[in-house]
Amino acid sequence: MFRIVLVRHGQSTWNKENKFTGWTDVPLSPAGEKEALRAAGQLLAAGLDFDICYTSFLKRAIKTLWLIQEAMDRMWLPVVKQWCLNERHYGALQGLDKGQTAAQYGEEQVFQWRRGYAVRPPALPEGDPRLPEHDPRYSRLQQAGRPRTESLADTVARVLPYWNREIVPRIQENRRVLLVAHGNSLRALVKHLEGVSDEAITGLNIPTGIPLVYELGPDMKAIGSYYLGDAEEAATAAAEVQDQGTASRSFG
Amino acid sequence: MFRIVLVRHGQSTWNKENKFTGWTDVPLSPAGEKEALRAAGQLLAAGLDFDICYTSFLKRAIKTLWLIQEAMDRMWLPVVKQWCLNERHYGALQGLDKGQTAAQYGEEQVFQWRRGYAVRPPALPEGDPRLPEHDPRYSRLQQAGRPRTESLADTVARVLPYWNREIVPRIQENRRVLLVAHGNSLRALVKHLEGVSDEAITGLNIPTGIPLVYELGPDMKAIGSYYLGDAEEAATAAAEVQDQGTASRSFG
Repeated sequence: MFRIVLVRHGQSTWNKENKFTGWTDVPLSPAGEKEALRAAGQLLAAGLDFDICYTSFLKRAIKTLWLIQEAMDRMWLPVVKQWCLNERHYGALQGLDKGQTAAQYGEEQVFQWRRGYAVRPPALPEGDPRLPEHDPRYSRLQQAGRPRTESLADTVARVLPYWNREIVPRIQENRRVLLVAHGNSLRALVKHLEGVSDEAITGLNIPTGIPLVYELGPDMKAIGSYYLGDAEEAATAAAEVQDQGTASRSFG
Repeated sequence: MFRIVLVRHGQSTWNKENKFTGWTDVPLSPAGEKEALRAAGQLLAAGLDFDICYTSFLKRAIKTLWLIQEAMDRMWLPVVKQWCLNERHYGALQGLDKGQTAAQYGEEQVFQWRRGYAVRPPALPEGDPRLPEHDPRYSRLQQAGRPRTESLADTVARVLPYWNREIVPRIQENRRVLLVAHGNSLRALVKHLEGVSDEAITGLNIPTGIPLVYELGPDMKAIGSYYLGDAEEAATAAAEVQDQGTASRSFG
């Protein structure tokens, strides 16, 4: 049996402001930093340890990982940062809050972007300074690594090849892997691990900052999973994400 | 022409207490954290940017690097951590302060350990819980990577192969490299880059937290070097290390 531990980054400053974040590189809020430290405490309490860590190119995930490493006295662990683990790219919605988006595009359209597995928001326009090709961290990538918008299906299409190519072999070598990422890059992974349908996956919510342990079988699919810490707390956090129905909490 | 930027980690809690540190994994002091932030400001002011970072397995160097990355908004840069860049292993002296060491071994012996290029302090004894084989970060390494004591010559013998094998090729590919390490692992590198003699190198002091820029020729040897920021401040800091003559400041 194999295992991987997933952590969704803590609250960011834009989660707090209820904005579509996507690839916008906003920092953790003070509450998000506390969530990271709580996650570290839960990992320590559970006796979990790691050999290698994976995260995205975005500072809210990287800082969550750094805070966990520091609190676990594991700063020396190798860390692989990968754009494939980034949050879903929200195109032209990035920076808009839920109210603005609904006012501009209508509630029904916003619902489609939130719940339609293969529906892409409007792309960032040509010449937009936020286009990934203008950012040094993405400028060397091929066009496929520089999306201007993404559906959840697009996110799955970049997370899974990386998972299969880079992370699965590490797990099969019995490396203990910690993966700190985002609401939708983790959804993409959970969809694969649990075989969730295209329809159901957009309704699945992973709470921030609560370590999610997956036990994997020989085919590297889930045979079980559980949140660390107080189970009720995890359920409440997930339900809050759901009820709140905010674009930012659900879609990063 | 090629370039590399070296930074010696900021003050650690044991530097402050004037103890031999070596491979003991002590954190930065608050003053050390400030030094790291100042270094980041100097790098930004100089318009320097990086593609890849190297550091040791020790948290005082890693945290210095993390603080620099965060202040420069370069948290996404790849970071390679390597035991070969660790501080010199001080064997049984680790944890002793200057006064204790002199009282136990005599001033002349302490001088030999500080100034003798190939002189090793007493090794950590068999069964010592501080032996690297008891630390998960070193337990997988071959014996050569698990010293029980080191002379500066021993440190050179592990820093240089790593430099030539892993870092030089990156520089030759025009990657902009930032290396954050320790008093003696940086001495080892500077000895090579500048062709410093065995006798002179133990008297060369690199101040903490002040970026040191090396311009390298096609043979990857120094053709010039300078400290960032106030030149006088750098000279004063180096002289302080010298005059103070404390084991900890000079030997990490």
